[in-house]
Amino acid sequence: MPNLLLTIRYDGTKYHGWQVQKNALTVQEVLQNAIEKLFGSRLDVKGCSRTDTGVHANMYCVSFFAPFYPGEYHTVSALNRFLPNDIKAYACKEVSVDFHARYHCVGKEYIYRIYNGKYDNPFYDKYSFHYKYKMDENELNRAASYFEGTHDFAAFCSAGSDVEDTVRTIYRCEVTREGEEVLIRICGDGFLYNMVRIIAGTFIDVAKGKTKADDIPLIIKSKSRSSAGKTLAAKGLFLNKVYYSEVELEGG
Amino acid sequence: MPNLLLTIRYDGTKYHGWQVQKNALTVQEVLQNAIEKLFGSRLDVKGCSRTDTGVHANMYCVSFFAPFYPGEYHTVSALNRFLPNDIKAYACKEVSVDFHARYHCVGKEYIYRIYNGKYDNPFYDKYSFHYKYKMDENELNRAASYFEGTHDFAAFCSAGSDVEDTVRTIYRCEVTREGEEVLIRICGDGFLYNMVRIIAGTFIDVAKGKTKADDIPLIIKSKSRSSAGKTLAAKGLFLNKVYYSEVELEGG
Repeated sequence: MPNLLLTIRYDGTKYHGWQVQKNALTVQEVLQNAIEKLFGSRLDVKGCSRTDTGVHANMYCVSFFAPFYPGEYHTVSALNRFLPNDIKAYACKEVSVDFHARYHCVGKEYIYRIYNGKYDNPFYDKYSFHYKYKMDENELNRAASYFEGTHDFAAFCSAGSDVEDTVRTIYRCEVTREGEEVLIRICGDGFLYNMVRIIAGTFIDVAKGKTKADDIPLIIKSKSRSSAGKTLAAKGLFLNKVYYSEVELEGG
Repeated sequence: MPNLLLTIRYDGTKYHGWQVQKNALTVQEVLQNAIEKLFGSRLDVKGCSRTDTGVHANMYCVSFFAPFYPGEYHTVSALNRFLPNDIKAYACKEVSVDFHARYHCVGKEYIYRIYNGKYDNPFYDKYSFHYKYKMDENELNRAASYFEGTHDFAAFCSAGSDVEDTVRTIYRCEVTREGEEVLIRICGDGFLYNMVRIIAGTFIDVAKGKTKADDIPLIIKSKSRSSAGKTLAAKGLFLNKVYYSEVELEGG
């Protein structure tokens, strides 16, 4: 049976994250339904990551064994006919039989979007956190640079996580402005529960002057959740890229 | 009584256009409700333009006589607390008593958004028309240039309009690409019923090669609706700027 790597995008507004749950609509369930319609049988679809309720994805990868492979164009087009408007596939390729979307993932990039306009904006409301006061990108980028490298990020992990090893490597963390939007882009080998949303909340503390950029190393060192910022809203978070050593993927 | 010029943005997805209607939710009704909550009385709010069901606005202007003027910041902030997430105000100023948002409007700019990616994209679905085949911007811009100037645009007016004079002046019409999006930007002194959406449909005919750029003058000359393209979906259309000779407005 061919092992397929399918890439999708989704607007997570109305979903309870990726993973199938009882009594709650999830992206995995909706995607598995579409895949079942295309292939005629219920297939076990492995996702690259758990994502929380309300989080979006510009790129999300899944792998599954299909009874046959109709080729990229037909697979993507047919699935999109069965998928709702807020979940759409855009690429598919056959991969080696031992490939697994989650276990073989070597890195991910997230973007956290902050709308920095003076007043609420209907076109950003569902896709960003609104912060209306001044944000100094230079100071934010100085703060961002401290996250890069291998650190114990226990201070940036929400309670409720059962992960034991809280050490992660951040390859890149940077803040850019595009008009009235401030984008936090962070790429790493893995992320703890709510880690990017807590880092984003810490950047809000930096913007406020409550935390200084140079305090970041101390916050990391403290390993204490209470020294970091608030967990910002899920709606501002986008999984933007997924990396595998074996395959090169477009998009995000 | 102060005459106020208020500027708003709205995501038109769930509204039956601007103008109050029986049995259908409109932007005017929702805005008038918010204004009533702020000022304590039902005020007659004049809009700059009728917009159709599903059309969006990056900038939309209204004027109304208010019992008092709390200043820009308080007016906008208070209204936004009463407005839903898909309609938000962002500017307000006091204008002369004879100012009327519709009658004093001297020009408008619309943007029609076409998503030109190969597959459907959840983040463009509500805000653009999807055309997946090749679009040649040079040919489209040659077509666009023929719309500029003063012409009888009867061929670009849907049936059902009771307008007698179909002559309008287009100041600028141009097509640009931003990544996978193709944007048609058109600025003029006024627009006929569905005019921008029919022009956008004619650009699709040009992209298909069904119509040549150099055919545009003949289509205009024909004054016949059937020689122009289809009326593209409302969801791709944005009112982007509103011009008054008396006041300078930001945004859009």
